[in-house]
Amino acid sequence: MLQRIRIVLVNPKHPGNIGAVARAMKNMGLTHLSLVDPVEFPHAVATARAAGADDILAKAQVCADLTEALTGCHYAYALSARSRTLSWPQCDPRECARQIASQAPALAGIVFGRERNGLTNEELAQCHYHVAIPADPNFSSLNLAAAVQVMAYELRYQALALEQSISAGVIPPPRELATAEQIQGFFEHIESTLTKLEILDPAHPKMLMLRIQRLFLRAELDVIEINILRGFLKAVNKRL
Amino acid sequence: MLQRIRIVLVNPKHPGNIGAVARAMKNMGLTHLSLVDPVEFPHAVATARAAGADDILAKAQVCADLTEALTGCHYAYALSARSRTLSWPQCDPRECARQIASQAPALAGIVFGRERNGLTNEELAQCHYHVAIPADPNFSSLNLAAAVQVMAYELRYQALALEQSISAGVIPPPRELATAEQIQGFFEHIESTLTKLEILDPAHPKMLMLRIQRLFLRAELDVIEINILRGFLKAVNKRL
Repeated sequence: MLQRIRIVLVNPKHPGNIGAVARAMKNMGLTHLSLVDPVEFPHAVATARAAGADDILAKAQVCADLTEALTGCHYAYALSARSRTLSWPQCDPRECARQIASQAPALAGIVFGRERNGLTNEELAQCHYHVAIPADPNFSSLNLAAAVQVMAYELRYQALALEQSISAGVIPPPRELATAEQIQGFFEHIESTLTKLEILDPAHPKMLMLRIQRLFLRAELDVIEINILRGFLKAVNKRL
Repeated sequence: MLQRIRIVLVNPKHPGNIGAVARAMKNMGLTHLSLVDPVEFPHAVATARAAGADDILAKAQVCADLTEALTGCHYAYALSARSRTLSWPQCDPRECARQIASQAPALAGIVFGRERNGLTNEELAQCHYHVAIPADPNFSSLNLAAAVQVMAYELRYQALALEQSISAGVIPPPRELATAEQIQGFFEHIESTLTKLEILDPAHPKMLMLRIQRLFLRAELDVIEINILRGFLKAVNKRL
């Protein structure tokens, strides 16, 4: 999975940040770095801060603009503060890593903006998803390399989980996650079945349903699983 | 939860790292920083790299040794490479954050070692748990501030999840996870029920059960949930 990921820095100003990004990437097993119009690169400070991740810097691709940097990528994710004005598919770093895991063999670009100004609206609009790191709203601007570190950590965490399940013989198929409506429909189906079975305690109907909902939300059901579970409920209802 | 956490840096060499740690902490809502015998502190470079997190630096407690820095903490976690020689309770940053969430109102100290040499065996032995960031074994040494960033991110992620469940009225009780035997018993109960309902395809009985098992293993069922699900299966079986 990590080979399918390209880290893209747009117009980074400080060579120290570029070096620190290379180190963070190599620590987490990422190798592909693209630099869009870096202010100073290559630079001795970048190499020093890379602390041994020189190979990432040496292979880094310098591009003129974001379009060039994303060439060949099937999906693009832009790191960005959570926006209330621009409505765009949003996720957090963990969800982003899960999505990328499920998109094999597609290539994903993860785009980080300028130290001071982030990404322009045009650049944001080139990306399929906006990824917000859940920072303190009163002090939300992470150092560039720190943001890459968080994202790279989540990607590695997900990649290791994927490897473990493959080596355990459970080859995870690409999962199409159920939509909110499908999940809601499933919950209503359970509730009516439990009522018919007289399992729901009329005094505390909500507590039991809350527990069941929490369980299945935690499981992150996919469409096939919803169909299996509803098929089961249907068969039960037929006998009642 | 974040107020119960103290970040401890042991003998940090570079003031730039101290500043970057302060920034990472403030980004993630952490406030308590202790410095054990810092080489240069306070320092203009630390303040510059803090990029506005000066308040964390100003309140930082300078201590003579780790014992002093951990005074008042109920639990101590040491960041450390995964060790095969020293047998000690180990976890990763995510598990560490979950543990701390469940330890309220206890105070936790999270201890980070020297840039080059990490922690001594004596310092490691002062901590209840060793936390390993799952880095690439071939390039496993993270920058100090990067390691703090990863840990602080996991702590904030967990703290936000906790807040959300509390504000949704679901005060998460300590969950007693089901044992392997309980889960196995549940799976057998499902299988016999599905057979009676004639849902299990005699040609492919295993595929459906595998899917169901994978779903419920992913959900990490607790004992109450197992009881709810088996109660439901029992009621269904009674009607068949």
